[in-house]
Amino acid sequence: MSFDRLQKKIDEMKNPTVVGLDPALEYIPRDITKKHIDRHGETLEAAAGAVCQWGMGLIDVLYDIVPAIKPQLAYYEALGPYGLMALKTICDYAKGKSMYVIFDGKRNDISTTAEAYSAAYLGTVTVGGNEIFPFDADALTVNAYLGSDCIRPFIKTAVKYDKAVFALVKTSNPSAGELQDLVVIKKGMQGKQGIQVKQGQEDSEGSSEQTPNLYTTVGELMEEISRETIGKCGYSRVGAVIGATYPEEIEFLRKRLSSTFFLIPGYGAQGGSADSVAGAFDKDGHGAIINASRSIRTAWEKTGGHYTDAARREAIRMRDEILQRIMI
Amino acid sequence: MSFDRLQKKIDEMKNPTVVGLDPALEYIPRDITKKHIDRHGETLEAAAGAVCQWGMGLIDVLYDIVPAIKPQLAYYEALGPYGLMALKTICDYAKGKSMYVIFDGKRNDISTTAEAYSAAYLGTVTVGGNEIFPFDADALTVNAYLGSDCIRPFIKTAVKYDKAVFALVKTSNPSAGELQDLVVIKKGMQGKQGIQVKQGQEDSEGSSEQTPNLYTTVGELMEEISRETIGKCGYSRVGAVIGATYPEEIEFLRKRLSSTFFLIPGYGAQGGSADSVAGAFDKDGHGAIINASRSIRTAWEKTGGHYTDAARREAIRMRDEILQRIMI
Repeated sequence: MSFDRLQKKIDEMKNPTVVGLDPALEYIPRDITKKHIDRHGETLEAAAGAVCQWGMGLIDVLYDIVPAIKPQLAYYEALGPYGLMALKTICDYAKGKSMYVIFDGKRNDISTTAEAYSAAYLGTVTVGGNEIFPFDADALTVNAYLGSDCIRPFIKTAVKYDKAVFALVKTSNPSAGELQDLVVIKKGMQGKQGIQVKQGQEDSEGSSEQTPNLYTTVGELMEEISRETIGKCGYSRVGAVIGATYPEEIEFLRKRLSSTFFLIPGYGAQGGSADSVAGAFDKDGHGAIINASRSIRTAWEKTGGHYTDAARREAIRMRDEILQRIMI
Repeated sequence: MSFDRLQKKIDEMKNPTVVGLDPALEYIPRDITKKHIDRHGETLEAAAGAVCQWGMGLIDVLYDIVPAIKPQLAYYEALGPYGLMALKTICDYAKGKSMYVIFDGKRNDISTTAEAYSAAYLGTVTVGGNEIFPFDADALTVNAYLGSDCIRPFIKTAVKYDKAVFALVKTSNPSAGELQDLVVIKKGMQGKQGIQVKQGQEDSEGSSEQTPNLYTTVGELMEEISRETIGKCGYSRVGAVIGATYPEEIEFLRKRLSSTFFLIPGYGAQGGSADSVAGAFDKDGHGAIINASRSIRTAWEKTGGHYTDAARREAIRMRDEILQRIMI
């Protein structure tokens, strides 16, 4: 089972972190970009070549200490079809070095289109009589706003090919709460002519049985529809994305969603710390992986030296900081 | 202003419809697929070549009667980087024939990543000193679950390059209501110690001021943050996606969201009819575009003949059916 695979890698390396590979062009060292521009001109092909070299350089210095990478698809798509080639090259390269690859694409759509997305990133496409993995990532982030029937095709593909998804539950951006924190009235609670909803102090934390908020409802829906896929590690194939910037909510959701593996972005540059993410782990130190992107990608700008050395140092520092707070 | 551009095209052609280009391989005529497999083997390159030929064939017979196309990105991504090349080729080809191109990607992410998505599909990327449009679509569908700060980068790009976005409000799939129909309590309405929410019969339709549902809240948030971008036609640069299968909700939202242009998918194969979408238009017959994908893509399987002839006939039938119900 897929999160079994990820948890095993985390345990073997004693490192519950994932490095985000978000190739914003301005953060790629100039000498790399220049080399590719010299060869291909100021083109998207050159930019994609630079991204490939940059990403493979990071993988070379991380694969023996970090279990997983998380490419942020937007940055690859911003380089057009060449960018998607770079994404595929980086994915293949990381998998060749036994890393677990989480595509951060936050995809979703209605039924047959959800099937197409799951085929694209986790499964296969058949051309004539030939079954081909277009990208073959290990996991994909998805958006659950469309409801459960749009998550099920991903679960089906995940079961078939030993993959997984992470659904957005509580995101780390400033306006995340505008919709995600809204208190909702569940259907069973709605009377036909009138109802009373009592809110205690707990409600604002989303901890009331009567009036959960939207993100808790999303998390519970994901846990409910994925129960049959729970693996040895105790977690299903549908994980949850929860921002590192909400320590209380992380702790609350960890208790509430006992079979949901957590992907926690927002560590480092966005303000998340080892303290703020400690609550994501279960009593055995399992069930979560913490992502840092910018702090590792930009480490060389702060410390000087080669970008790969700086990234490795920062990845080790992050690992050790988190390990001090939990026990694997 | 972007929806001014789209509305103008709709008015000129007297056709408020858009054809979805969703190239599920099984619906592409075999002779096309075979030709490309003969040349490139059973590969994604062959499949992408077939998709290109198929899509350009449709554009050739539609561009003089249909104002817009809506490629569904999932199907292109399912063919890997070659699929994205096909997407770009089809986009360029349609724009070369003056069609308005709506990318249906349902993208979104937090701030800088939302910027990357908006640059990818609507804006530009700078490589060295060269500013390049990676795809240059006219509009993109986006998911608003992350809140307003993730929509703003798209608005900024849309204003700069005369583009637009459509945010998912109420989708056409069976389980859409699981989250989208949830009754929500807005922040101003929450007391610290306890509140009473009274629900009348109207609430289930989302028409109560006190207890709107989630999709109405999303729609209103989108209308609110895009007010400054209202164009001559009276509509802003942030439209709404609302499934054709909900005539009452469409009518309700048309009244409530007076400056929001509607994209209505689900006509035809999914069960939407001219009657069910009529309420999407304002009193002048403006403010909405109706999408059909499967019914046009698969028309040749029902009627026989060449796929392009069948698609054109079905597109004309759909246009006339809708025009009978509204006046442009």
